[in-house]
Amino acid sequence: MNSIQFPTHEKIIEAVDKLQNEAIEKLKQMVSFDSVLGNERDVQLYVEEVFKSLDLKVDRFEIDLEKIKHLPGFSPVNWSYKGKENVIGIHEPAPTQHASKPESERKSLIFNGHVDVVPTGRDALWTQNPFSPYVKDGRLYGRGSGDMKAGIIAFIIAYKAIKELGFTPAAKVLLQTVVEEECTGNGTLACLERGYRADAAIIPEPFPEIITAQVGLVWCKVNVRGKPAHTLEMSKGINAIDGAMYLVGELRKLEAEWNTVKHEAFSDKFDHPLNFNLGMISGGEWTSSVPCECSFDLRAGFYPGTPLEKVRKTIIDTIDRAAKEKNLPYTIEWNGFQAEGVTHSASGDMMKQLGATYKSALGTDAIYSPVLCTTDSRFFELYYNIPATCLGPESKAIHGIDESVSLESLRDITRVLACFISDWCGLQPLH
Amino acid sequence: MNSIQFPTHEKIIEAVDKLQNEAIEKLKQMVSFDSVLGNERDVQLYVEEVFKSLDLKVDRFEIDLEKIKHLPGFSPVNWSYKGKENVIGIHEPAPTQHASKPESERKSLIFNGHVDVVPTGRDALWTQNPFSPYVKDGRLYGRGSGDMKAGIIAFIIAYKAIKELGFTPAAKVLLQTVVEEECTGNGTLACLERGYRADAAIIPEPFPEIITAQVGLVWCKVNVRGKPAHTLEMSKGINAIDGAMYLVGELRKLEAEWNTVKHEAFSDKFDHPLNFNLGMISGGEWTSSVPCECSFDLRAGFYPGTPLEKVRKTIIDTIDRAAKEKNLPYTIEWNGFQAEGVTHSASGDMMKQLGATYKSALGTDAIYSPVLCTTDSRFFELYYNIPATCLGPESKAIHGIDESVSLESLRDITRVLACFISDWCGLQPLH
Repeated sequence: MNSIQFPTHEKIIEAVDKLQNEAIEKLKQMVSFDSVLGNERDVQLYVEEVFKSLDLKVDRFEIDLEKIKHLPGFSPVNWSYKGKENVIGIHEPAPTQHASKPESERKSLIFNGHVDVVPTGRDALWTQNPFSPYVKDGRLYGRGSGDMKAGIIAFIIAYKAIKELGFTPAAKVLLQTVVEEECTGNGTLACLERGYRADAAIIPEPFPEIITAQVGLVWCKVNVRGKPAHTLEMSKGINAIDGAMYLVGELRKLEAEWNTVKHEAFSDKFDHPLNFNLGMISGGEWTSSVPCECSFDLRAGFYPGTPLEKVRKTIIDTIDRAAKEKNLPYTIEWNGFQAEGVTHSASGDMMKQLGATYKSALGTDAIYSPVLCTTDSRFFELYYNIPATCLGPESKAIHGIDESVSLESLRDITRVLACFISDWCGLQPLH
Repeated sequence: MNSIQFPTHEKIIEAVDKLQNEAIEKLKQMVSFDSVLGNERDVQLYVEEVFKSLDLKVDRFEIDLEKIKHLPGFSPVNWSYKGKENVIGIHEPAPTQHASKPESERKSLIFNGHVDVVPTGRDALWTQNPFSPYVKDGRLYGRGSGDMKAGIIAFIIAYKAIKELGFTPAAKVLLQTVVEEECTGNGTLACLERGYRADAAIIPEPFPEIITAQVGLVWCKVNVRGKPAHTLEMSKGINAIDGAMYLVGELRKLEAEWNTVKHEAFSDKFDHPLNFNLGMISGGEWTSSVPCECSFDLRAGFYPGTPLEKVRKTIIDTIDRAAKEKNLPYTIEWNGFQAEGVTHSASGDMMKQLGATYKSALGTDAIYSPVLCTTDSRFFELYYNIPATCLGPESKAIHGIDESVSLESLRDITRVLACFISDWCGLQPLH
C-alpha cells in the first residue's frame, strides 16, 4: 500500500463547502416536519433514512421509561413514551493499521442533536408558515431551523464530507438524534442508558460559542384553588387568578434574590443569569364568576452546584408562605425539566482540541462562553463522565417568532465539526 | 250567578303549600339539565311542556340577531343564535264581569326567569355532581338551583296554585323563560322586541329582597401580545403573561378609584360596590418560551347613570396607557355584557304593592335592597318603561361550588308571587 495522504483541514473544508447546497436542502426537509413534543416520529424516520444513506448502522429505539426513571438526571413526565424514538447512526471503524493517528490516540465521539421543537405561537404571527422553511438574506427561516435542526445537519454533513474524501473516522462515531431535549432530556438519557458512550460529546445547539457552563432549571406547574362566587359577592370568593398572580409576584422576588448571588461561570457575562419564566397560565371559565382554579407554569433557572432538592424546597417554601398568607389551597407538580446546572471545563482535552480545531478551520479564535439555559450536555458530563459541550450555528429568535439560522454559520460549524472528526478520532481510508 | 268568593291570601298560601312537593320535583327536573351557554334547548323544551300542562298558550321562538342587534341594551356576541330559543307561556284572561277587581285596576304582569346557568368548575370540587340535584337540610343543591331555576319554579307554581283554587289571573300574565341572562340579556331583549309587554315585570333572581338598584357592567377580553423568545435571552422577549398582569394591576387601581365615588343607591349597604373580576386568563404554550400571547376576561361594574361609552373609554384609556408604558401591543374585544346600571324606584306602584303583598303573605316586612350585579330587569325599566324588580328564593354559592337554594324560601317566594298575581292582576273564575 502506498503512503496515504490524509486530508488537511483545507481539503476537509473544501469537501464541506461542496455539500452546502445539500445541507440547505436537507435542512429544509428537516424543518418541514412539525416535530413538536409528541410529534417527533416522522422526522426521526427521515433521519434514519439519511443515516442509512451514509452506510451507518442504525439503532432506532423507543424510550423505555422503566429503564431510565430511576437514573440521575431523569425528569418526570405525565405523558406516554409509546412511539417516542431516538435514532442513532453508528460508525464503527474497521480495524486498520492505516489511520492518521496511532490507535491509542483515536478517540471516539458522540454528536447529539434533538429533533423536537417548541410550539410556534399562532401561525399568523409568522412571516410565513413556521414549517414551510424558506431562505432569505442568507438565513433559513422556520421553527426548529436553529434549535436545532441545523446543528443536526452540521454533523451529518461533516460526517459525509469525510466520506466524500474517501475516508472515515478512525474511531467510533455516534450520530444521535433524540427526542425531548426541550422538556426533559430523557431522550439523551435513554441513549446513555442503552450503553452508548464515547470519549466526548458535542451538541451543535444554536450557540456559535463553545459552551463552558449552563444553568440548571426546574419546571413546575402550580395549581391555585380559589373560592368561586358570583361577582356580586366577590369579597366572599377568592379569585384564583388574582391568587396565582400574587404567588408569581413572590416568586419574582425570589428570582431577584437569587440573582444577587454571583457565580464565577456566569457573572462576568450576564447581569441577570437566573431567569424565572412564567411560560403558561390558565384559569377561570366564566367572566362573571370568581374563578375557582388557576394554574401557571414556571421555569426557574439556578446555578450549577445548587442541589435540585434545595432549589425545589426554596420554591415550595416561597409558594407555601405566600399561599398561606392569602388562604389559597395549592398543589405543585414537578413534571418536565429537573435539570442540574453544569460547567464544562475549558481546560479539558476535548474543549482545548475543539478550540484549536475551530481556530484552524475558521481562522479566528473560538469564544468560550456560558449559556443561560440547559442542554443535554449535562447528562454526558455529570452522570457519565463524558466531556461534553455545545457549539452550533448562529441562530435568531429560537423559541420565538420567525426563528432563523445563518447558513454561513451552518457552513462554518460544519467545517469545524468535520475537521474535529479528523483531529479527535483520526481518519482512515474508506476502503 | 252567585256572588263569587275570591281566595284570600290565606287560601292562596294553602294552595301554594300543597304544591311544595311538586315544586321540589319540578326543580330537580330543571336542575338536572346542564343548561350552560349554548346548551339551553332541552330545558326549554321541558319548560314548554310544563307551560302547556297549565293550559298556557306557548310561544317558543329562536332569537333573531338581526331584529335585536340595533336595539338599546343589546350586547354583542361572537357566537351563533341558531337554535337558541326563549319560551313564553301566555295567559290571556277571558273577558269577564266577574273579576276580583274592576277592569281598570287589573294590571298585566310578566314573570321572567333565565334557564342558562354558568359553568360549574371541576365536578370533583362539588360534593355531588352539579347536575344531579339533591336535597339536604332543607336546601336543594345543584348548579342553577338558585340562579335561577327555583325562581322559575316559583312563578310556575304560583300560577298553578291560583288555578288549583279554580281561578285565573284577570289580566294578561306572561311566564317567560329566557336564555343568556348570564352573559348578554339578549334573551329578554328578544322577548321585548317580539312585542311582549306588561304593566310590570318580576324576575325571581336569587335575592330574597326586593331589588331597588343594580350596577351596570361590561365584559371585555384583553389580548396582550408579547415578544416570544427563548428563556435564555428572556430580557429580549416581552412576556405577554407578565404584561397582562401589569395591565390587570392598573385596572385594579381604576377599580379602587371608582369605588372612592359614592352612589346613593349602593353606598349605604356596600363598602365596595364596584367589582372588577378577572374571570378568565389564558396565555403561553411552553414553559421555557417567553409567551407571545395572553388574554384575560374582565367584568367591570359601574354605577347606574354612567354612560356605557364613558365606562369603556376609561377602561380603554387605562389599558392603553399601561400597554404603551410596557410596549405591549393589545386588542380589546367587547363581547358579552354591555349592560347599563338601573335603579328601580321603591315608590312605584308595583314596588309598593309587592312590598305590601310580601308583608301580608309572610308576616314580615320586605327588605328593599340594591344588588351588585346585573339582571334582565334593566331592559324592562330602562328601554320599555315597564316597572321591574327582582325577588326570589334565598340561595347560596351561586356561580360557586355546591350552589343551593332554600326550599323554605322557595315556598315563601312562591306564596308572595301567587298572592301578588291576585293583588296586581286580580282574579276571575277559571270557568
